[in-house]
Amino acid sequence: MNAGFFEKWKVLVFIGVVLLACPGWTIADVTVPKEYLALFQPITGIAVPNKENPVTPEKVELGKMLYHDPRLSKSGFFSCNTCHNLATYGVSNLPSDIGHKWAIGPINGPTVMNSAYNAAQFWNGRAKDLEEQAKGPILNPLEMAMPDEASAVKRIGSVAQYRDIFARAFPGEEEPLTYDNIARAIAAFERTLLTPSRFDSFLTGRGDALTDREKNGLKLFVETGCTGCHNGIGIGGGSFQKMGLVKPYRTANKAEGRFEVTKNKEDMNVFKVPGLRNIEMTYPYFHDGNVWQLEEAVRTMADVQLGKKLSDSETGDIAAFLKSLTGTIPKEALEMPVLPPSGHETLRPSFD
Amino acid sequence: MNAGFFEKWKVLVFIGVVLLACPGWTIADVTVPKEYLALFQPITGIAVPNKENPVTPEKVELGKMLYHDPRLSKSGFFSCNTCHNLATYGVSNLPSDIGHKWAIGPINGPTVMNSAYNAAQFWNGRAKDLEEQAKGPILNPLEMAMPDEASAVKRIGSVAQYRDIFARAFPGEEEPLTYDNIARAIAAFERTLLTPSRFDSFLTGRGDALTDREKNGLKLFVETGCTGCHNGIGIGGGSFQKMGLVKPYRTANKAEGRFEVTKNKEDMNVFKVPGLRNIEMTYPYFHDGNVWQLEEAVRTMADVQLGKKLSDSETGDIAAFLKSLTGTIPKEALEMPVLPPSGHETLRPSFD
Repeated sequence: MNAGFFEKWKVLVFIGVVLLACPGWTIADVTVPKEYLALFQPITGIAVPNKENPVTPEKVELGKMLYHDPRLSKSGFFSCNTCHNLATYGVSNLPSDIGHKWAIGPINGPTVMNSAYNAAQFWNGRAKDLEEQAKGPILNPLEMAMPDEASAVKRIGSVAQYRDIFARAFPGEEEPLTYDNIARAIAAFERTLLTPSRFDSFLTGRGDALTDREKNGLKLFVETGCTGCHNGIGIGGGSFQKMGLVKPYRTANKAEGRFEVTKNKEDMNVFKVPGLRNIEMTYPYFHDGNVWQLEEAVRTMADVQLGKKLSDSETGDIAAFLKSLTGTIPKEALEMPVLPPSGHETLRPSFD
Repeated sequence: MNAGFFEKWKVLVFIGVVLLACPGWTIADVTVPKEYLALFQPITGIAVPNKENPVTPEKVELGKMLYHDPRLSKSGFFSCNTCHNLATYGVSNLPSDIGHKWAIGPINGPTVMNSAYNAAQFWNGRAKDLEEQAKGPILNPLEMAMPDEASAVKRIGSVAQYRDIFARAFPGEEEPLTYDNIARAIAAFERTLLTPSRFDSFLTGRGDALTDREKNGLKLFVETGCTGCHNGIGIGGGSFQKMGLVKPYRTANKAEGRFEVTKNKEDMNVFKVPGLRNIEMTYPYFHDGNVWQLEEAVRTMADVQLGKKLSDSETGDIAAFLKSLTGTIPKEALEMPVLPPSGHETLRPSFD
């Protein structure tokens, strides 16, 4: 070992010390404090239960058929899946959806994936659960436009095989084929649309499930204050909040949020906080569907909700964390049902 | 053995002789002559080959994604599957389909299932194969309404993951992402949409695969003359024929059939003979989508094409046979793909 080698060794030690001392350069693991993790819960079961509508395999199978069945629309053209496409994480990736006679919807269509975790349904929370929600779009004249509940029941009931399938899905009921049961079956299916992600692995103890950048993004997500609303199992979906809390959010969209339900002035522009699972895939963002890039959505939220200006690197790290929420769609949900044929009495589609 | 018993035995023999002598009451098997069976061929392989576009697993997988991808439409709302829904045997079950800005299509949408067996594509046969066909609806202003091929290529090419998937599906090509290759991939997927049925089992020797009524329907189908056009592996799809051959077919539909392609007067109202596989499921019938009941379609065809009046029982038996053509959709085809997300540069949807 000569003197030259010893000098080089000293230089290397010096560089090592500098690297370790400089947090921006550290190569050590990013550690996420335990209390940060306690703000969330991982997906565990395969369905979100509802005591009033137990999730059974028969009901889920029927619900999947109805979810894909365009006969629930007046035109015979729209199914639930048309706008809440399972191939694109339960959304259409459009600013707002197209409905009967090319009606343009007033608001961005939320995803059905993990929506069972939401404390209420629709942006303004007008439905208390998925069972109530599923009854809306079928009758909405701007969406599926069925004239009334009876027409929907009649159309579906005219399909001989459905009568048997309803009887199996709702055993012991005197009249299994009702509008409520159509909604219950669809909701039961939707209760299985849960997408476990790398973040769930991380929450359940697999420390290497997130990269350092994603962990740093998670820390920033908590420390910036995003978890004030985006927390729990849905990473949101559990509360209502004003859009533009500390600074007005400018939009041409006419939706008034919770005010539409309560008629209380303070509920103007108050919307359900969306869950952020699969947010990478469910662009465009916000109730107006105006923002297409996740980074822009993050920056805007920090600005108008929290009064914080994020740097590009902070924004990028938070977005990287949010992409770790992209989960796996259950295989069974992606298996398309084969729909039973209409009968002689089936109400014909109408394009008018 | 007493005399009374002997008398009863004679009565039973008498009844038996009467039953056997009366063809309407026979309990013997219906036998379908071999030469009748030679008019058809069973589905054997899992894909219909095309030398110019070999069907590979990579291409089929990509084709399935594109088939479900609404980004191939201007509005971002319509995919191939919107009108050729795999959940309903590759049709929409509508008289005609709805396109961009609620355009109502001029003709009934044919099924994609088993369409690879067709000698030509579209009702007027203007595309020689599925590879050529798939290029049409994307650009049709009444359907998916993409302004031009370049826009479709640009939209799909802006999806990062697609670039890799195209490279794998079209290995060795300098520029794998082209409009022709979009169509080739979709066509490769469609070449796998084959639905073996009980009739195929029957054709390959399983005599009990059809009921006696269905066998009788098959005999009547041949003896009435239906197999003049509805023959081969597709039970149709192999030729063109005038709609209203012996008697005018009255319709408000403006389609002129093969005349639109050839401009020959004798091709007026000449349409591609549709294949009858899954015909039970692909109502409403004919190029105008005017007829909803299979029995009515059978009766009308016999009348206007063959000048024959079928009895109710003959019509019913033929319809029963036709229902034995309802096949099994390949499991792989029913597994929905998960579509890759758009990029920052992806051309936005336009509803105008």
